[in-house]
Amino acid sequence: MSQVYDRVALIGLGLIASSMYWAMKRAGLAGEVTGYARSEATRDTARRIGLCDRVCDSVTEAVEGADLVVLCVPVGAMGAVAAEMAPALKPGATVSDVGSVKRDVISTVAPHIPEGVHFIPAHPLAGTEHSGPESGFAELFANRWLLIVPTEGSDPEAVARLRALWEGMGANVEEMDPDHHDLVLAVTSHTPHLIAYTMVGVADDLRRVTDSEVIKYSAAGFRDFTRIAASDPTMWRDVFLTNKDATLEILGRFTEELFALQRAIRTGDGDLLHDYFTRTRAIRRGIIEAGQDTDAPDFGRVKGTR
Amino acid sequence: MSQVYDRVALIGLGLIASSMYWAMKRAGLAGEVTGYARSEATRDTARRIGLCDRVCDSVTEAVEGADLVVLCVPVGAMGAVAAEMAPALKPGATVSDVGSVKRDVISTVAPHIPEGVHFIPAHPLAGTEHSGPESGFAELFANRWLLIVPTEGSDPEAVARLRALWEGMGANVEEMDPDHHDLVLAVTSHTPHLIAYTMVGVADDLRRVTDSEVIKYSAAGFRDFTRIAASDPTMWRDVFLTNKDATLEILGRFTEELFALQRAIRTGDGDLLHDYFTRTRAIRRGIIEAGQDTDAPDFGRVKGTR
Repeated sequence: MSQVYDRVALIGLGLIASSMYWAMKRAGLAGEVTGYARSEATRDTARRIGLCDRVCDSVTEAVEGADLVVLCVPVGAMGAVAAEMAPALKPGATVSDVGSVKRDVISTVAPHIPEGVHFIPAHPLAGTEHSGPESGFAELFANRWLLIVPTEGSDPEAVARLRALWEGMGANVEEMDPDHHDLVLAVTSHTPHLIAYTMVGVADDLRRVTDSEVIKYSAAGFRDFTRIAASDPTMWRDVFLTNKDATLEILGRFTEELFALQRAIRTGDGDLLHDYFTRTRAIRRGIIEAGQDTDAPDFGRVKGTR
Repeated sequence: MSQVYDRVALIGLGLIASSMYWAMKRAGLAGEVTGYARSEATRDTARRIGLCDRVCDSVTEAVEGADLVVLCVPVGAMGAVAAEMAPALKPGATVSDVGSVKRDVISTVAPHIPEGVHFIPAHPLAGTEHSGPESGFAELFANRWLLIVPTEGSDPEAVARLRALWEGMGANVEEMDPDHHDLVLAVTSHTPHLIAYTMVGVADDLRRVTDSEVIKYSAAGFRDFTRIAASDPTMWRDVFLTNKDATLEILGRFTEELFALQRAIRTGDGDLLHDYFTRTRAIRRGIIEAGQDTDAPDFGRVKGTR
């Protein structure tokens, strides 16, 4: 694969940034990649494991001369980071991000982007329950979606280049408008996460069933919830606070449906339950056919490499 | 491993029964294993794939002469099957089951068990989202829990023998009383399943986000829900109808917690969210340490064999 950017700066060095680094290097998509993390411990870890060609001690140093700057910090921190780095951005550079919420990122980051710099928000639909610089692996984005959310007047050439980078990392790229992005993600990711967090919290809280019993008998069902509920707390706090409206809307729908099923249980309406469960089963088949998961017992997970 | 029962009868030939057959045969735990399924198509499939040494066309034929009879039908069907087979049971035989609910199974099955036959309810905490005779594999129970729920006056020798069978199939065996079993399972399995079904139903129902978008962008979060929500509709209908009280209790707790988190999102209480998500993360670590899941990207799933 040929190089897409001479210089890339990764701001924030967690799961996504570290996976991007290994994926870009493996495919030869970037010349020099600089990295910056606010925490000194994270920067030390990055240097120790060879994450980034150069780890910088300030965000301005990291972005200086970069053709592409990718904000990989929690959504709630993006505005402040954008303000700090803005004066050091190279004219003609592209600034992008990997945040799970797009309307809020656009409203907090865009005002800081200097004229002549392209701001092209993006969101890779990929992740694991692990976080931090040591959790990344090159295959994270393989056959996953990358949603580009161009802002008004985004330069088509700059968009095409960013798309080429993500495609080079194995992602399938689509464009979407910010409000629709936030609603789709509220359905497919944000609300499911909140629900999983809640269920795990209930289990932890119940006096008549001990934590050790919950942990011991977690097969089938609860185990998958705990995996979802083990995701990074800061990232998810910011997601819910910044995608408030869409999340609350979907939560409202969820509660309504849950009450209907709860009522069917209480009244013994087996037909309603059976019909409902048959319908949801069909959706699973659609996902397997769409190639977003596999039917095999290993669920298509592959061991990551660096 | 030495043979535990001369003759075993499996009633109902779905995921659990077929996995039991392959596991028993692999370990040499049973002499002849007969099988019966109500549906002729299922019996034909079983004969075609060599599931059971002998597939019978009636439940009485299948249980005749059996030292162990295992009811592997949905919980709601167990009472009728028990009534039908009762006259054909061999004196001294053991009747067990694999139902996900225990109080209800005991109250519907026990009255049909003739004097001199041991009734020892059990529940393997293992499964996949697949169902039917072709979905079983010998490793399904490896390192999973098998809960034995002895009824009043269960013969200790018969219990020990059933335990040996399950241990021979790789399971870890514990005893539990029926009410506590039903509560623990309401927390770790039944309520999580209902919630997953609900979330998938909401996604399917939402007009502004198309099904194809939901399917397409199902990575991280929703995908796991769809897997849970793809489980057998009949089995799960029966679980909720027969474990009504415990499920409704846990659902009540769940809704209460969900409303607290929803309120935190609405009011922007980031500290509450962050604290909650940090606490649930710790539970995940406990599960990994308890050996009920792995930290590795393949989540410890192994390809099944027959």
